[in-house]
Formats: sequence, structure tokens, C-alpha cells
Amino acid sequence: MAPPGIAFYYEFASTYSYLAAMRIEAEAARRNVAVQWTPFLLGPIFAAKGWETSPFVTDREKGAYMWRDLERQARQLELPFARPDTFPQNGLLAARIALAVAEDGLIAPFSRAVYRAEFGEGKDIADAGTLGTLLAAVGCTDPDGILARARQAEIKQRLKDNVAEARELGIFGAPSFVVGGRELFWGNDRLEAALDWAVAGG
Amino acid sequence: MAPPGIAFYYEFASTYSYLAAMRIEAEAARRNVAVQWTPFLLGPIFAAKGWETSPFVTDREKGAYMWRDLERQARQLELPFARPDTFPQNGLLAARIALAVAEDGLIAPFSRAVYRAEFGEGKDIADAGTLGTLLAAVGCTDPDGILARARQAEIKQRLKDNVAEARELGIFGAPSFVVGGRELFWGNDRLEAALDWAVAGG
Repeated sequence: MAPPGIAFYYEFASTYSYLAAMRIEAEAARRNVAVQWTPFLLGPIFAAKGWETSPFVTDREKGAYMWRDLERQARQLELPFARPDTFPQNGLLAARIALAVAEDGLIAPFSRAVYRAEFGEGKDIADAGTLGTLLAAVGCTDPDGILARARQAEIKQRLKDNVAEARELGIFGAPSFVVGGRELFWGNDRLEAALDWAVAGG
Repeated sequence: MAPPGIAFYYEFASTYSYLAAMRIEAEAARRNVAVQWTPFLLGPIFAAKGWETSPFVTDREKGAYMWRDLERQARQLELPFARPDTFPQNGLLAARIALAVAEDGLIAPFSRAVYRAEFGEGKDIADAGTLGTLLAAVGCTDPDGILARARQAEIKQRLKDNVAEARELGIFGAPSFVVGGRELFWGNDRLEAALDWAVAGG
């Protein structure tokens, strides 16, 4: 029988996705749950609600709280934290690259590297040069080839499909976890509950 | 030396405040932390942001998720759950009554009784008759006197003061926990972190 699985929907602009990305494999391995790394974009989902940007920007108090909370949570999880100058960042290219390296087994290490650069070191992850460097750092032997592939129609469509699936699942934020193609859990705080749900049989 | 303390800001319309209200005293007692029960209203805070109602209403997907998550969380905490017909409910009178019974040491049991009626039994907690019955059930010997007192200017002003303090603290949602008059934690999921912060010295 296949091990239980979980779909991990993450957006590279999302702060709490950083925390989840850094811990999901260890928590999943502990429970023998397989993780489907599923990058998507919140932009189109927010736009469909008539929003122009993140609630962390439009709601000033919520945004200020989020950065303080993220700092506290990162410290507790012993993760590096540095607030980037720009928020939210454009994660489009990073998401396409993540999909382009999935076949090579690099989607998880690349995604973690992007998050660490963004929220651990405060770097600009919209930049192709930075992303190429991160690709090489996680063992990609042809970063330029991957960058080219990330811009092809097939990969673009795959990301669009992920966004469409997220919308059909009722996903409204990131990170989100989906068990059995149906049961939705939202937020880094629900990672354990989602994994336990998968273990219990979805 | 006085034991460490925490201010518990809750709004009677708030679903996750229900979960926090039912657990805070046990979690606080375990850590020898004193709880300042601080009812407030989110309505004026939302209105100041230009919102007419709860994000759980305006964001349909987030609202649907919240009810499912609340049901799961209540089950895990072994709390009763019944979705009320109306959401959000008008918690104004309940908040005033809570303040009016504070001197009698009944603010915590009365608040828990309101939440249990609202989200454990699906009752209408805007109704004065229901609130009077809850007052009697938690040992109030003069529910009518308390109802009259709850409508006096002094109590109304006390609630306004709580709302003003919440705004000054940057509170944007409920439940919220404040340690040392400064450090803010938002959401039932942060109850333990807030209490631990109080224990560590604020």
C-alpha cells in the first residue's frame, strides 16, 4: 500500500510558507507521509477577491504583527530570519523554476533555498541571477538550461494548473495542506494536524 | 512578587475566542499566570479599516474553511460545537454584562457560558433573556440587577476603554493576548506561546 500523502501548497511570497517549507519533510518523515510539493500563486486568488495585494500590506496592524510573530516563530524553530526590503516579493519565476526541477528531484531543496534566501537572508528572489545561484547551490548541474525551461509554455501551464486546482480546493492563503484531495488545512500552525489527518486515513 | 499576568482580549462574536476562553484558565494555572479577562469589540476596529463585517463573511473561502477548522479543533479539544444560524452575532450586551459581573468574580464563568451557548449549542447570544438565564446559571443572584447595570454609562464607557486600548495595542483580531502591556499574540494557536512569554518575564 502506498504511504499516506499530503499536498503542500506554497507561495514563494508567503512568510509562513517559509516556516512550513523548512519543517515539513522532517515532520512528514516522522509519520511516514509523502509530501507533494505544489508551488502556486496567491496573486490570481487575491485578484479574484478584488484585492490588489496581501492582507499583510492592506491591514497595517496585521502586517506589523505578522513580522513580529514571524521573528518569534523563526527563533523558536531555530531558523534564520531577516526581513526583506520588499514585501510581497514576486515569486513567479521561482515557482516556475521549482516546477522545472521537480523531475530532477530538486523541488524541495530548491524551494527551501529560495525561502532561506528570502526570509533568512532578506534577499530579492525575483532576480534570475539569484535564483540561478540557488539552483547551482542545491546541485543543479545546468542552471541556465533550467532557467530556459522554466520560461517554456509547458511549465507556465503547469503553474497555472496548480493555481486552478488551488482555487477549486477553496485555498485562500498559504501555506495550505490538502489531504485526500479534499481536506484543507491552512497555515504553518496546522502542519501537524494535516499530517496526522493523512496518517489517520484522510 | 506578583505572579506573571496576561491580558486576554476576546470578542463574543469571535469563533476562535471560544476555543481560547474554554482553555485559558487551565493553561494559565499550569504556569501560574494570572489572566485579565478583557472583553472588547472588533466592530469598531474593523470599521476603522473600512470593513463592514468579518473577513470570514467577506472572504467566502476563508469563512467556509474557518467553520470546518473550528469543528475539527473543537473535536480535538473535546468541546461541543454547533454552528449558529447568525454570524457574526452581536456581542455588545454580552460584553457589557461580562464587565458588570467582573466585581463579583463571575466574568470568566459568565464568558465561558456565553461562548458555550453560542458555539457549543448554536444559540442567539444577542438576546437579553438568554443572557439573563446564563447569568443565573453561573451563580449570579440578581440577573435583572446586572442587566440594568450593564446598560449604565459607567459600564458602557469601560467597554469603550477596552476597545480604545485594543486599538492602541495594535490588536486587529480575536482572541489576542498581551503580555507586559506590549507583546501581542494573536489567535487561539498562540495561547501557549503568550503564556510562556509571560512566564519568561514578558
